[in-house]
Amino acid sequence: MRLVLVAGTTETAAEPGISAAGADPELMRHTPGADLDVVVHGEPTLAPVVPVSPTGCPTPAVVTRAARELLGFDAIGVDAGIAGRTGAPAIDVGEGPGADVREPTAVPGAEGTYERARELGGALPDDRIVIGETIPGGTTTALGVLTALGEEPAVSSSLPENPLDLKRRVVAAGLDAGGLAPGDAAGDPLRAVTAVGDPVLAAVAGLTAGAVESDTEVTLAGGTQLAAAAALVRHAGVDAPLTLATTSFVADDGSAGIAGLADSLSVDLTVTDPGFDGVEHPAMAAYVAGEAKEGVGMGGALHLVEESAASMADLRERIVDVYDRLLAGADASEGAVEGSPDGAGTAPEGEP
Amino acid sequence: MRLVLVAGTTETAAEPGISAAGADPELMRHTPGADLDVVVHGEPTLAPVVPVSPTGCPTPAVVTRAARELLGFDAIGVDAGIAGRTGAPAIDVGEGPGADVREPTAVPGAEGTYERARELGGALPDDRIVIGETIPGGTTTALGVLTALGEEPAVSSSLPENPLDLKRRVVAAGLDAGGLAPGDAAGDPLRAVTAVGDPVLAAVAGLTAGAVESDTEVTLAGGTQLAAAAALVRHAGVDAPLTLATTSFVADDGSAGIAGLADSLSVDLTVTDPGFDGVEHPAMAAYVAGEAKEGVGMGGALHLVEESAASMADLRERIVDVYDRLLAGADASEGAVEGSPDGAGTAPEGEP
Repeated sequence: MRLVLVAGTTETAAEPGISAAGADPELMRHTPGADLDVVVHGEPTLAPVVPVSPTGCPTPAVVTRAARELLGFDAIGVDAGIAGRTGAPAIDVGEGPGADVREPTAVPGAEGTYERARELGGALPDDRIVIGETIPGGTTTALGVLTALGEEPAVSSSLPENPLDLKRRVVAAGLDAGGLAPGDAAGDPLRAVTAVGDPVLAAVAGLTAGAVESDTEVTLAGGTQLAAAAALVRHAGVDAPLTLATTSFVADDGSAGIAGLADSLSVDLTVTDPGFDGVEHPAMAAYVAGEAKEGVGMGGALHLVEESAASMADLRERIVDVYDRLLAGADASEGAVEGSPDGAGTAPEGEP
Repeated sequence: MRLVLVAGTTETAAEPGISAAGADPELMRHTPGADLDVVVHGEPTLAPVVPVSPTGCPTPAVVTRAARELLGFDAIGVDAGIAGRTGAPAIDVGEGPGADVREPTAVPGAEGTYERARELGGALPDDRIVIGETIPGGTTTALGVLTALGEEPAVSSSLPENPLDLKRRVVAAGLDAGGLAPGDAAGDPLRAVTAVGDPVLAAVAGLTAGAVESDTEVTLAGGTQLAAAAALVRHAGVDAPLTLATTSFVADDGSAGIAGLADSLSVDLTVTDPGFDGVEHPAMAAYVAGEAKEGVGMGGALHLVEESAASMADLRERIVDVYDRLLAGADASEGAVEGSPDGAGTAPEGEP
């Protein structure tokens, strides 16, 4: 078993108010590389920032890293268009960052990215892979792809109040720009992802298709973004069994409609509750308040803990360790890096 | 502890007869990516070939992989200019393949590569790193760098009969083309590597400098190439303790002169004998016959086994396992990949 973490960027995330995967739009471009760093190394190495939401909620990479430390599973990065820096090794399948979905073409390299990822998925020697993602703005592109394919337009959010109207407006403009009406791309997943998707969706779909074609079991670790990738795979004609492993925070979010979407895609849904309720810790309380919800493979990581002999209490303890280490590292780098731009190296502010 | 494997290419390897790190010059360009694949995944995934020498001696990556399976240490790839494909994740620090040393500039991106690698070496969270290399033609560029720096021109070979005259002629032509006489680049390591080095030397030197500057212990895992990287580090003014861990095959090679070179660079030399004498197996007998000798971190991997509770007999057993798996994979891919170019997927031919 191996965690495969697909990282990339879309200019769509620059739209104010659309994503909480970074303290501000400038820092948000560093989030994917920093998330890889946290999962692989336990802390940012070359990425200049610990990803936090505007209110200080730390990245779900903390939870995934904690699960990895607890269970000892291997994790590899896949670069589908990382814009910032990372000290984590990655397999490059992409052709650079994705454009804003309101451009005529959102992912010019979608086909190449899909094919390279598919080949990689077929070549990995594992019996089972768990695929996660990190891409700010990814729930909006997921909504775009689901709409273009004619699937249920379910969409979660890293913000407590899902900016649904904004996302729908952006997606509507994106479909217009791509010359698509809802459902027009049914059966043509590359058209959907090229017009209104992002490079991570192309890569996750390709990895999944390639893996199941070579009899590797695939668990999609995430919420509506991974469901959108599953939809792309289904529209590519792949009907192999797929599992979507997400968090209770996504499952409890009515606007996400994840259960209905999974059902309509014939995808098995697994929901795991990490038991953060009542925990007075900034790395966990924010989730209970509705922030972040999912990402960086968190739902899959929780599922792996559930499958193991370890307990959620063990995981929560480890989350505190990882969080404390991140804070210590961020403090140290503030001291060490002179003239670090844009508040890079700034730690989460504490309570969200 | 972590193994950091730096992979790249130099056009110098295209000179007929200069390297045995591939069955022929066309296949040789796939060796670095395939070596990473073997160490990380246990077999080539996206690399189209199992690296073997012209006589069928399998890559030293087999030994390093076997040690990794035995001891369970982590390994990450660093891409300093891989030309072929690989399914192994890597951190990109390079600017593409190196040119032939007989060009006026052998490594146009040497300074950028060195600096990015130095930053990475300083950022890795490990207490100790073991650095290996894979670059066909690398002993010739190592000779070039040592000569340019005015150090002892020691040079090993992956061939039983070291083509020393050829290497010296190539290096002499390279120094001419770069406008250097022997010793002219003393104290100016970037000038040496730019004129007559390769991108892997630039990256290994940068990693080493960055790591020791941040109090990470560094073991250089290899022979004359890693010694040349140590020379670059010394000429950059870094006098921290360094260990060079190499194989008995390099230490026993008079033309390599590794002990004298290490001594003159104030580098501690560790030599490990894997006990291949009398072993009738194609993955081991070739070394006793003088082939390969070292590479892909082999000397460091042997040193790690020696430091551990495992025995060399355990390692030799595991080498057979890894080799058999490689053969099985190569056979399977011959069947699966139609029209695979250049004999890609061809297995070692058996007895060297």
